[in-house]
Amino acid sequence: MNDSARPSRKAQNARAEKGERAFIRAIAAELPAFQSAHGFGDDLAPLEFHPGGLLWTTDMLMDGVDFESDRHSWRQIGRKSMAVNLSDCAASATIPIAAVCAVALNNRLTMADALELFRGMRDCGMTYQCPITGGDTNSWNSPTVIAVTIAAKPDGDQHPVSRGGARPGDGIYLTGRVGGSILERHLTPTPRILEALDINRHLHPHAMIDISDGLVVDLWHICEASGCGAVLDTEYLQEVVHPDAETLAKKTSRPALEHALYDGEDFELIVAIPSRLTPEQCGRFGLHRIGEFHVEQRLLLKRPDSTQVELPIRGWEHFRDKSD
Amino acid sequence: MNDSARPSRKAQNARAEKGERAFIRAIAAELPAFQSAHGFGDDLAPLEFHPGGLLWTTDMLMDGVDFESDRHSWRQIGRKSMAVNLSDCAASATIPIAAVCAVALNNRLTMADALELFRGMRDCGMTYQCPITGGDTNSWNSPTVIAVTIAAKPDGDQHPVSRGGARPGDGIYLTGRVGGSILERHLTPTPRILEALDINRHLHPHAMIDISDGLVVDLWHICEASGCGAVLDTEYLQEVVHPDAETLAKKTSRPALEHALYDGEDFELIVAIPSRLTPEQCGRFGLHRIGEFHVEQRLLLKRPDSTQVELPIRGWEHFRDKSD
Repeated sequence: MNDSARPSRKAQNARAEKGERAFIRAIAAELPAFQSAHGFGDDLAPLEFHPGGLLWTTDMLMDGVDFESDRHSWRQIGRKSMAVNLSDCAASATIPIAAVCAVALNNRLTMADALELFRGMRDCGMTYQCPITGGDTNSWNSPTVIAVTIAAKPDGDQHPVSRGGARPGDGIYLTGRVGGSILERHLTPTPRILEALDINRHLHPHAMIDISDGLVVDLWHICEASGCGAVLDTEYLQEVVHPDAETLAKKTSRPALEHALYDGEDFELIVAIPSRLTPEQCGRFGLHRIGEFHVEQRLLLKRPDSTQVELPIRGWEHFRDKSD
Repeated sequence: MNDSARPSRKAQNARAEKGERAFIRAIAAELPAFQSAHGFGDDLAPLEFHPGGLLWTTDMLMDGVDFESDRHSWRQIGRKSMAVNLSDCAASATIPIAAVCAVALNNRLTMADALELFRGMRDCGMTYQCPITGGDTNSWNSPTVIAVTIAAKPDGDQHPVSRGGARPGDGIYLTGRVGGSILERHLTPTPRILEALDINRHLHPHAMIDISDGLVVDLWHICEASGCGAVLDTEYLQEVVHPDAETLAKKTSRPALEHALYDGEDFELIVAIPSRLTPEQCGRFGLHRIGEFHVEQRLLLKRPDSTQVELPIRGWEHFRDKSD
């Protein structure tokens, strides 16, 4: 078919435009009054003013990769889309202030589905005082894609925490147990924003990251950005293996520890804590020690017999090959 | 297949993660030195501080809808992805300051393709002093999706222009000719940022919008937001029909005027100009008068014989049915 002989695809879309505008109106009707009154639906949305400057983050979720629309409800999917972005704010100990959301919805979605998706995003955002202030809605034949961008402000005079500040000797801590999130927990992550702000105010961590790709991979992100390495301690690790990792281990016939080390989407924080602070002091903030940063830029696992083996940085099948 | 028996999809992704990190490193290497040095690759990117507050906008482009990767180069696609977002800044007469980009790349893309896409976005952004400061890269089996979010600042003391301020009696003006963009022009839009800033400083327009869905549909967006209607004048319109609309009209056997009214993706601005200003005064800023806003909330077309017909708001086939 000659391209020049067919109408613009955008023009074809314009025919479905009434549906899009109806959707935007339906969304506006569910927003707080002040927001609907201040130009929701305009090309640009206002961003609040903050003397300490702002930060922003963007994350894209795809059907079949980050969620499965044939098994998960659209509200759950909306919640997760917002939560993983809020988790990035937690990782930097900043306070989210507003979000914009762009979606490419599969054609089969009904208006009711789309609204449920929006409600999931909105409700999760509002739990953390982060309203949706704008967006872009599209539909197409392929699987649904959701992109959320969040702006955040520093917590008063506290510096935002980056992943690049870990120093040899720093303790490696986790905000919670990890592994086996695929059993369903990955759909309902709790962004550790309140915990992160508390930790930043009282413990002044050198670096933080949230676990989206897996404990080992995300710890390595800190190491790369900080120019150091790390030793994880098997004994400590046993205490942060999530019960879901144990359950999953029975089905996969792999050690639960492997699931804790390599499964993704726990959204707990890895925190680099100055060496002067004790595990007891950190424990008051819900932190579990799992190891220590060191100079040599590689990842090691300290076994119960005190021997050390190298931790492969990629998926757990490599780990199995090399160290078991 | 039992879901709980398979590894997390995220964990599987982690195996391809080395590629993603290599890509991010390659991107960082092509950024200005100050940016690479300031935490590119961290979870959050810093947003410059501006006393007048900020605005932001997000737009998603999908392969097969907004571009066609089998015909267009990845650099062109990157340019367009950035340009359509910059066009939203133009529509509000604000100055873009930074962008974040999230992508879901089809698995068949090579690293070279992905870098070309990035370069297209970066170069287009830098033409308007709008650097890419962060993003999220993903890959999957489905067509490529690109989401760009841009933050913008007001132009000094000038108020950003919304789509909701048009008043009956205001002149309707265009920044350029429209129609037939599908012939290729839609791929290389010029965001009318400089023109918009100039128009805002000197003419204080009541409302603006950029034409993405089509002249009629986007004009209607202004009418809806402003609570008014509009009359377009056929005589004036003849002067803003793009030569591409004439060329396309020969192939489609439809009037060139229809293409001018209903084709999308011209990215020219529709501007509501206070009635005290003459077409000559506006002409100095490259503006072409095409009609006038009026009280009654519907769209009319004034024919050469001065009769008026209602303009259907959706696709041109309806227009043809009703008024021809």
